[in-house]
Amino acid sequence: MARNITARSVDYSQWYLDVIKAAELADYAPVRGCMVIRPTGYSIWENVQRYFDDAFKRTGHVNAYFPLLIPNSFLQKEAEHVEGFAPECAMVTHAGGEELEEPFAVRPTSETVIGHMYSRWIQSWRDLPVLINQWCNVMRWEKRPRLFLRTSEFLWQEGHTAHATEQEAREETLRMLEVYRKVMEEELALPVITGEKTAGERFPGAVATYTCEAMMSDAKALQAGTSHFLGQNFARAFEIRFQDRDGELATCWTTSWGISTRLIGAIIMTHSDDDGLVLPPHIAPVKVVLLPISKDERQAEGVLLPMARELSGQLDEALGGLYTAVDTQFHMRPGDRFFTHLQRGVPLRLELGEKDVQSGTVRVVRRDTGEKADLSRDALVPAVQKLLEDVQSNLYRRALSFREAHTAQASSYDELKAILAERGGFVEAYFGGTPEDERRIREETGGVTPRCIPLVDASTGRCIVTGKEGRRTIFAKAY
Amino acid sequence: MARNITARSVDYSQWYLDVIKAAELADYAPVRGCMVIRPTGYSIWENVQRYFDDAFKRTGHVNAYFPLLIPNSFLQKEAEHVEGFAPECAMVTHAGGEELEEPFAVRPTSETVIGHMYSRWIQSWRDLPVLINQWCNVMRWEKRPRLFLRTSEFLWQEGHTAHATEQEAREETLRMLEVYRKVMEEELALPVITGEKTAGERFPGAVATYTCEAMMSDAKALQAGTSHFLGQNFARAFEIRFQDRDGELATCWTTSWGISTRLIGAIIMTHSDDDGLVLPPHIAPVKVVLLPISKDERQAEGVLLPMARELSGQLDEALGGLYTAVDTQFHMRPGDRFFTHLQRGVPLRLELGEKDVQSGTVRVVRRDTGEKADLSRDALVPAVQKLLEDVQSNLYRRALSFREAHTAQASSYDELKAILAERGGFVEAYFGGTPEDERRIREETGGVTPRCIPLVDASTGRCIVTGKEGRRTIFAKAY
Repeated sequence: MARNITARSVDYSQWYLDVIKAAELADYAPVRGCMVIRPTGYSIWENVQRYFDDAFKRTGHVNAYFPLLIPNSFLQKEAEHVEGFAPECAMVTHAGGEELEEPFAVRPTSETVIGHMYSRWIQSWRDLPVLINQWCNVMRWEKRPRLFLRTSEFLWQEGHTAHATEQEAREETLRMLEVYRKVMEEELALPVITGEKTAGERFPGAVATYTCEAMMSDAKALQAGTSHFLGQNFARAFEIRFQDRDGELATCWTTSWGISTRLIGAIIMTHSDDDGLVLPPHIAPVKVVLLPISKDERQAEGVLLPMARELSGQLDEALGGLYTAVDTQFHMRPGDRFFTHLQRGVPLRLELGEKDVQSGTVRVVRRDTGEKADLSRDALVPAVQKLLEDVQSNLYRRALSFREAHTAQASSYDELKAILAERGGFVEAYFGGTPEDERRIREETGGVTPRCIPLVDASTGRCIVTGKEGRRTIFAKAY
Repeated sequence: MARNITARSVDYSQWYLDVIKAAELADYAPVRGCMVIRPTGYSIWENVQRYFDDAFKRTGHVNAYFPLLIPNSFLQKEAEHVEGFAPECAMVTHAGGEELEEPFAVRPTSETVIGHMYSRWIQSWRDLPVLINQWCNVMRWEKRPRLFLRTSEFLWQEGHTAHATEQEAREETLRMLEVYRKVMEEELALPVITGEKTAGERFPGAVATYTCEAMMSDAKALQAGTSHFLGQNFARAFEIRFQDRDGELATCWTTSWGISTRLIGAIIMTHSDDDGLVLPPHIAPVKVVLLPISKDERQAEGVLLPMARELSGQLDEALGGLYTAVDTQFHMRPGDRFFTHLQRGVPLRLELGEKDVQSGTVRVVRRDTGEKADLSRDALVPAVQKLLEDVQSNLYRRALSFREAHTAQASSYDELKAILAERGGFVEAYFGGTPEDERRIREETGGVTPRCIPLVDASTGRCIVTGKEGRRTIFAKAY
């Protein structure tokens, strides 16, 4: 088996695609800009979904399903919203053999159609809050597609909530941002900075947009999830009103928040290396692979294989699921067998050779560090459990150190430009400019944008562009 | 609270819609023929999904995701397939502000695009079998929509497998039919008859279609799931080929199988009554509701409510999830509070009154039979667990008895017509006719069709239409 992954230092974009291909995570679909999520990639998505979905349910949210198609007239009802999304929409104009009277957009996001339904369901303050989430596919026509990061169709969840008061809606917006941060950091091992978006980066139709910003291993930023305080913009456009406790008609306050299959791109670009995919154990479809290895076929299949299967069963029971695999690719050379698991990012590789049978041990190799150790077979289960947690926390710490090492401060616009041109990364600077200033920075720097105004350590100072008061803001090039 | 559900005997169709509305399972969307699945309905779907998905994974299948849009040219590649589905397709003709060179169909089913991907992924016998399932939305434009049963967009799973031999593919087709039967009977409490479809009822492009046929409480049939042996029809059209063990190029054999949100319609129409929804405990979002009831507000909220919450916690722990709810609608009259849970099909209602506090008991009311009993609070958990299983098996037995009581035999076409005109239900008769004969029967009987040729107790005899040899076949009107 030839090494088939381009080194990051040679061509980062090609490396990313090579990692995806070698691990069989996704493939291009025969529809321009669309992807097929292959079983290994989808299995990661299922694990990611489960963590988020559990967290949504623990915070009182329920799932529902709204229609794929949105009447064109709905998109028109919120002025900024239509401006933001209409150019990216795929339109259904014919159905059932006939031309439709009104074309439908394939949903790019569902604020409008959900707003319409909420206006029917919500009558009284007793109906509030409405805390609904939807897992579904959405479509935004992409001119420059890239697997997982930008595809014309992608999978996501979109939470949509309606509240009686502004304060409640604002609290919900930040609560879900915090839910995102926690799952991303604890389960996906992605360190993220939570903060507010500047006006130029806001969701079309939102009053305030909050984000979780992650740093990839090329020091570029990736927006990993967003939570929007929509004020009464959509509630007014769709007449989401209720009778309050005093019997007065009032208008709701709404929020929306989403994460998508783009997170898989973030996981790949945060943890992987030149050998291929590296996965945090919490979301790895296969956490441990066991390889019986012997040149003697009878020994391999007669003694080592049953032993591997027994250990695999013990581990699965302890891990609470089918999280281990036994490698039976006896037709391949051992080195090639190792390599398939390296490329697929399996966190721990357990090798069982003839020597191990005699010594009562198993050779374990960590995917994240390459470290090897011989574990006693009798105490394998707790040792493996501990190692998996070590890998998980090491990946998080490693990514965090990388981000810290690639974060700088700039006290002037020139300094910001110089740092970002020279070594990229995140640059913190005070900023208080307009969307127009943001556009100018983007043009003058070849794509640098304000990523967020961090929630922690918020401070104000002289804006590097306008000289007026600005807030501490992170700038970076972003995916 | 007024009774707002039409009696089945008055208008069965209206009853069905009233049950859905009262239980807040679904609503019509602002897109003709499409529905919104509301949280309670979606939660049932999540439970249904989990049972099927677990069963698929236990039988070696993995999930993946394929694109929503299918190039029009793909649909044309299999002659019967395009004839069957093209008239129902919704077409995307514009995207990203431009007219597309080739229109795309919103997938009505994915054999074609998955076949295309399989032809890229499958090279060698070592790549086989491919056992992939997809959970997704599909679209088939509906002229006469009905919530859950026939909607222009619905949610489903579609399994697609590729095999090296005909025998393996045939075995897979029947294996998945059996997986369907088992989950439907054991978890959804739906008795089903498994059998083969006649030629006139086959999936467009299949060599053989198998079905799980259920009987609704108006004695009409509902096709609850299908499994198709596709032979080499799609493999030839999409060139799904592999090098066999001898190095020769061979063509795969494929299958596909699906169940959809239509199953929720089947659950409603099998178990519910004139008071509203009745749900099997295995799939009920709320299995047990606890109602603290007292005219004395302090007593209700100060003593009974904390006690209800404690019992709720104990039950959730024993049931392994958040399956109980505590009713705090103190602003409503007790009778109205009961009624909301009746209508929503909660299997067990536990009432906690002042008397119960003194006697150390809890009053339990079964949704399926209306039976009441006083349970000791100290032994509540095992008693509730047992009752839930009793409700589950009672619902299955009741549906099975109903089907048996509404199944008859006919030895002539006239007899078949007479029985079905008089009292509906299932009629068994020998049949060996052509699709043309099936069409004639349908026309002459106002919609009776052969539902399936049962797999068990298969026998042959004189066809009631042609007089030639026929197979034992079930006829009925169907949803």
